[in-house]
Amino acid sequence: MGRMKTPSSLDSSSASAASAPAFSIGVDFGTNSVRALVVDIRDGREVAVSVFPYPSGTDGILLDSADPNLARQSPADYIEGFLATVRDAVKSAAKDKSFTPARVVGIGVDTTGSTPIPVSRDGTPLALLPEFQGNLAAQAWLWKDHTSAAEAAEITAAARAQSLPYLARCGGSYSSEWFWAKILHCKRTAPEVFAAAYSWVELCDFIPAYAAGNLDPLRLKRGICAAGHKAMFAPEWGGLPSASFLATIDPELARLRYRLYADAQPSDHLAGRLCESVAKKVGLPSGIAIAIGAFDCHHGAVGAGIKPGTLVKVVGTSTCDIFVATRGTAPAALPGVCGIVLGSVLPGAYAIEAGQSAVGDIFKWYVDRLCPAAFAGDNPYAALEAGAAKLRPGESGLLALDWNNGNRTILNNQNLVGLLLGQTLYTTAPEIYRALIEATAFGARAILERTAEYGVPTREIVLCGGLAEKNALLCQIYADVLGRPIHISRSAQTCALGAALFGAVAAGAYKNVALAQKAMTGVQGTVYRPDRTARRAYDRLYALYRRLHDAFGTPDAAPAALGSVMPELIAIRQEARHA
Amino acid sequence: MGRMKTPSSLDSSSASAASAPAFSIGVDFGTNSVRALVVDIRDGREVAVSVFPYPSGTDGILLDSADPNLARQSPADYIEGFLATVRDAVKSAAKDKSFTPARVVGIGVDTTGSTPIPVSRDGTPLALLPEFQGNLAAQAWLWKDHTSAAEAAEITAAARAQSLPYLARCGGSYSSEWFWAKILHCKRTAPEVFAAAYSWVELCDFIPAYAAGNLDPLRLKRGICAAGHKAMFAPEWGGLPSASFLATIDPELARLRYRLYADAQPSDHLAGRLCESVAKKVGLPSGIAIAIGAFDCHHGAVGAGIKPGTLVKVVGTSTCDIFVATRGTAPAALPGVCGIVLGSVLPGAYAIEAGQSAVGDIFKWYVDRLCPAAFAGDNPYAALEAGAAKLRPGESGLLALDWNNGNRTILNNQNLVGLLLGQTLYTTAPEIYRALIEATAFGARAILERTAEYGVPTREIVLCGGLAEKNALLCQIYADVLGRPIHISRSAQTCALGAALFGAVAAGAYKNVALAQKAMTGVQGTVYRPDRTARRAYDRLYALYRRLHDAFGTPDAAPAALGSVMPELIAIRQEARHA
Repeated sequence: MGRMKTPSSLDSSSASAASAPAFSIGVDFGTNSVRALVVDIRDGREVAVSVFPYPSGTDGILLDSADPNLARQSPADYIEGFLATVRDAVKSAAKDKSFTPARVVGIGVDTTGSTPIPVSRDGTPLALLPEFQGNLAAQAWLWKDHTSAAEAAEITAAARAQSLPYLARCGGSYSSEWFWAKILHCKRTAPEVFAAAYSWVELCDFIPAYAAGNLDPLRLKRGICAAGHKAMFAPEWGGLPSASFLATIDPELARLRYRLYADAQPSDHLAGRLCESVAKKVGLPSGIAIAIGAFDCHHGAVGAGIKPGTLVKVVGTSTCDIFVATRGTAPAALPGVCGIVLGSVLPGAYAIEAGQSAVGDIFKWYVDRLCPAAFAGDNPYAALEAGAAKLRPGESGLLALDWNNGNRTILNNQNLVGLLLGQTLYTTAPEIYRALIEATAFGARAILERTAEYGVPTREIVLCGGLAEKNALLCQIYADVLGRPIHISRSAQTCALGAALFGAVAAGAYKNVALAQKAMTGVQGTVYRPDRTARRAYDRLYALYRRLHDAFGTPDAAPAALGSVMPELIAIRQEARHA
Repeated sequence: MGRMKTPSSLDSSSASAASAPAFSIGVDFGTNSVRALVVDIRDGREVAVSVFPYPSGTDGILLDSADPNLARQSPADYIEGFLATVRDAVKSAAKDKSFTPARVVGIGVDTTGSTPIPVSRDGTPLALLPEFQGNLAAQAWLWKDHTSAAEAAEITAAARAQSLPYLARCGGSYSSEWFWAKILHCKRTAPEVFAAAYSWVELCDFIPAYAAGNLDPLRLKRGICAAGHKAMFAPEWGGLPSASFLATIDPELARLRYRLYADAQPSDHLAGRLCESVAKKVGLPSGIAIAIGAFDCHHGAVGAGIKPGTLVKVVGTSTCDIFVATRGTAPAALPGVCGIVLGSVLPGAYAIEAGQSAVGDIFKWYVDRLCPAAFAGDNPYAALEAGAAKLRPGESGLLALDWNNGNRTILNNQNLVGLLLGQTLYTTAPEIYRALIEATAFGARAILERTAEYGVPTREIVLCGGLAEKNALLCQIYADVLGRPIHISRSAQTCALGAALFGAVAAGAYKNVALAQKAMTGVQGTVYRPDRTARRAYDRLYALYRRLHDAFGTPDAAPAALGSVMPELIAIRQEARHA
């Protein structure tokens, strides 16, 4: 994997406003749409953006009315979306007088994942072949497809039974959202697709390969992010899980292993260069550096300025939490945490990925389905937030668990549900709304404490995503519950920014990611700092949260003495009211 | 206490429509208003009613903005309300061609309680004396006044420390709502009122005494209902608690004991006869029999046809549950159940009083404060019920505890709060509404199981109160959860009907209460019978309810293994959805 030479117009060790203009394009494939962002690599200035909602299915998702767990996407939508957004963004960017297509040095790509696509020997997605059109199993298997629960459990059981290390790096159990489980489910339920699939390619690897004009599944570049987090790939055990292990699950998986990949790289490496045919379609010169692809939140963390000691939380419908740890300090295993992979965020550092199954989704559920008429005006969120902001920590007497969509970290258990405790005959909607925000903060604290316990310290937190931008109350509650200063990412599109940053680094415009981050990323001026009084109340509430969390969180939870929970909650409430 | 002779016009052993018309008046003092009901004693036909809202304070209650626990009422409101409603009801009844004032044979009275009134030596409520006007401590201490929590705890502790039996009959602990606690609190916080009070009279004793023109506190007739349920009175230990016991709490209480009463009777006994002056004010002849007074729910149970094996639940904002047991079968003590008193409901039988701290209040809370706009039309209750009625038991995946206002029976613990478990991102308001109804049904089942465990069987249940009338879904859920047929009382005003019934019995128009009940009370034609499939689902949900109930219900609850609660709830949900 060679690095591109530094373009002569840019000093590779420090980009300044005085340098000649250069641009990079970040292409961010979300769940319902794709966006392309043109960024000035000297300072991270966002010059133009284009968004393309996937045209197929419901909000871009192919559903099956007979199976609510199924979620697929059309590979054709991805290709069309890539071409449309890059072409449009380039066109829009031309309004900026410093921009020309010739000044685009790199392209980076991030996508959802694990979103594997079955492909033919030449790399064509099966879904594009006439014989598989409309076959749901031949489409991309979207990250949130949960049809493969049984297969995931089987893989987990096999790895445990054989005392193999594969699960240590992915929190102790394999998920139905991931690569191997999906492929195995395909083999069992759509054998004709499995048989026709020469190989499987993650979306984040497919798009750079497509742009580079090199779809051959044995030769296209694979990223360490998808490989390490979803396919149990690790250099220290020889790449993908061993053929002998895979054979114990299904001999066909062992055979497939040799049609996948033996190597995977971080995103500062080149996936290739923009090929002639694609370049023409998007209005760019060919030869532009294309970085290895990765998952959205991982690039988002980089776009938000992640470094050791800084936790980046991408707060949306759910959250993705990214920590990084230098080689010496990274734990070998981190129970209940989704993944630990070398180089999946910052090259040379271990990235630790955790997450909360629902955050914004919980607030949206409450607002969409349960918001009382008195708050259901033009902006119910603002109305509830205004009421909630008047309350002192603990004053409502409410305590909630944030498990409406299960718990991804640290319990790794989807078989969980929400809980609300402390209602009286006077409980109000803003009180409940605040309790739900607090519950997500407590869930965040459980993750923070688990990583700290395993030697990964967090000194500050950067939030990204619309929720953080819009919800000052949430930010302050997070600061108070987590006991750390909360910063807000300067960019509102950190994933695409991070992708653009990797485009610039892969192009050689910066010597390393840290220098590119210094130039291109940043946080907003407002910092939310923990309030001492609020922290004390939240420490007490969190202790109660943990008692409920531990008592209800696993089927084999130890017996717990909960008789004092309600009296303590009432005592906290009374103290808050009379403070 | 002599019984009146049977009027010659009525056969004492069976009243028939052929008998000459005779009437009784039931006067029912509720929390916010008083109602008088004129009843044809031959068949229970309700001839006329008059309602009088208490004019003083907020909805008839004197409040103290500095103390939310305080709730007092004006004795003048009671007197005015008695006179106004009886006079108006008699006047209205005259439209019925069979009615004449001369045909009124009896008057019965029921009231809230414990609602003690401090009185002077001649029985005048202190509140009516110029020097105590406006003094809150000199008013009637309404049942729901909770200022005396510390004193109640002190009385409980003293009885326990001395191993005295007084608490056995009132569920194991003395309540802040009750007689002695209130008097002791008065002594400590308003000593001038305590000193001026020659005696204290329960509202249910005060009204009959007033009507009979005999207010002398040493001579007026006291009812066993208030005495037994609230003042720890029992003939077997010599009436009120011993002076030596009272002296350990406060010597003044011991002295007061001799200015209270040594005897107390059931409501089939005469309190006296309507005196000349009151008779004139209400347009009735003097000399009409006045029955001993009792509490509203106790008379309500009789008006609903209570008998051994029949549980009467008066379902309102809270519930009052009345069971009766013949002497031989009644338990000596019933832990967690409010009271066991001989003769407080049916003469000669033990009455067992239990209750749920909030039922209608929980639904009202949800509707008033939390009902989403989509259901908040003209009749939000009906809208939510319509949605809830479409659900199968267990289908929502929700489970709630009915403790928004604490738990009166069987936990006897006000230091509790509500709990809702099972929310997902799809949970709807009708699902929550149904879960709240189910929670109150589970609370009812806990009471039913406790009494059954102590040898008091329940074969059928009669519900009274507006909620039962209006809410068919609630009735069916109660039948399914409780596994008993649910009947609805024929009368919508069972308390007043029960009071009228006792007026008739005290007058001698019926030889006993059972005969009067046979003639005057009944249930509606609709019966809600348990559905087998629903019962099975509810048995499983109730088992989960009990695990939460027992784990959270007392400060010293034993450690509980709750890790399987959520998976079981999800399993029940999945089965219900695919049934």
